[in-house]
Amino acid sequence: MMVETHTHEISTKGQGDAHDITAVAARAVAKSGMRAGIATVFVVGSTAGVTTIEFEPGAVHDLNGVFEALAPREADYRHHLRWGDDNGSSHVRAALLGPSVTIPFRDGKLLLGTWQQIVLLEFDTRPRRREIVVQVLGD
Amino acid sequence: MMVETHTHEISTKGQGDAHDITAVAARAVAKSGMRAGIATVFVVGSTAGVTTIEFEPGAVHDLNGVFEALAPREADYRHHLRWGDDNGSSHVRAALLGPSVTIPFRDGKLLLGTWQQIVLLEFDTRPRRREIVVQVLGD
Amino acid sequence: MMVETHTHEISTKGQGDAHDITAVAARAVAKSGMRAGIATVFVVGSTAGVTTIEFEPGAVHDLNGVFEALAPREADYRHHLRWGDDNGSSHVRAALLGPSVTIPFRDGKLLLGTWQQIVLLEFDTRPRRREIVVQVLGD
Repeated sequence: MMVETHTHEISTKGQGDAHDITAVAARAVAKSGMRAGIATVFVVGSTAGVTTIEFEPGAVHDLNGVFEALAPREADYRHHLRWGDDNGSSHVRAALLGPSVTIPFRDGKLLLGTWQQIVLLEFDTRPRRREIVVQVLGD
Repeated sequence: MMVETHTHEISTKGQGDAHDITAVAARAVAKSGMRAGIATVFVVGSTAGVTTIEFEPGAVHDLNGVFEALAPREADYRHHLRWGDDNGSSHVRAALLGPSVTIPFRDGKLLLGTWQQIVLLEFDTRPRRREIVVQVLGD
Repeated sequence: MMVETHTHEISTKGQGDAHDITAVAARAVAKSGMRAGIATVFVVGSTAGVTTIEFEPGAVHDLNGVFEALAPREADYRHHLRWGDDNGSSHVRAALLGPSVTIPFRDGKLLLGTWQQIVLLEFDTRPRRREIVVQVLGD
């Protein structure tokens, strides 16, 4: 059993921007040389989230539409009163989606479906530099 | 420390169908012979999800009702334009819920509450054959 | 590679009560003496959830507001018909948010952002005694 920590940086364009980070996680698993285990894909920060989706523009658009209905960007948020921020919607969306997914792998390959990609969703209202951690445990 | 991969197949009846898969995960932990660790319960594919709930028909009905309000089956989705699919609501719901839960175990038993079951939620609009992966790590 | 199980109890005040449990997880990692790995922070029970958020009263208020819109406390729930309970909203919210987060650590420190705390959200309609499990795996 081993653990290996991989980090990766991504520049995002602000709220709604989505990045397919499947290859980042797959590479971390491949480089580790491990055959079976789990990869935890985690985004550092409280205004972005990680999940899996069929990564095509339509599905990403649809998902962003539901987040806009749930926590509209232009609504009033108590969070804004604290710092003069405008990203209350970002905090709510990120807390709902969560910062990580954990994906099993076997024979050195992530056990994802063909149409199932790991995606970083930027919720902040401005472009951000994001750090992704892929923590690989297994043997 | 060890890792063991268990897979299990389930036939679902389409959107809203829910399956209690607690026993699948508990059996994987028991068979592994491990005493303490984590079990990651993961569904392969982008139109189903995994969470925990009190598994009784009322609570499952209530949860499906919230998903229907969030991402109605009959709404318009950009995803439909891509493939002529009718399962945009499925993709959105699955991305929101996420494909996995990770449950700790000790003394060979999952540390779930009495009324807390692990559930597979089918979101696709047609019956599917689902592959569940239970990845057990521990010693 | 090792695994260590830490448990921690918290008294909550009922629906909407939120607790910053980052220090609980950080202490579990520090006590384990492990340098790199993952900490799975899990709440036992089906009417509470765990996520990460910037833990300040405004953001917590905003998140609770979205849960109230999604699954209003005073709405009708099928779950109420089963047990005469009044916590249908609690079950739905908990299933949506999920019972756990998994956080990577390195150099003995959780890789959280500066404004990213691990939070227990109580969804039940009455005060509860909650058991938090922090399962630490790594080396």
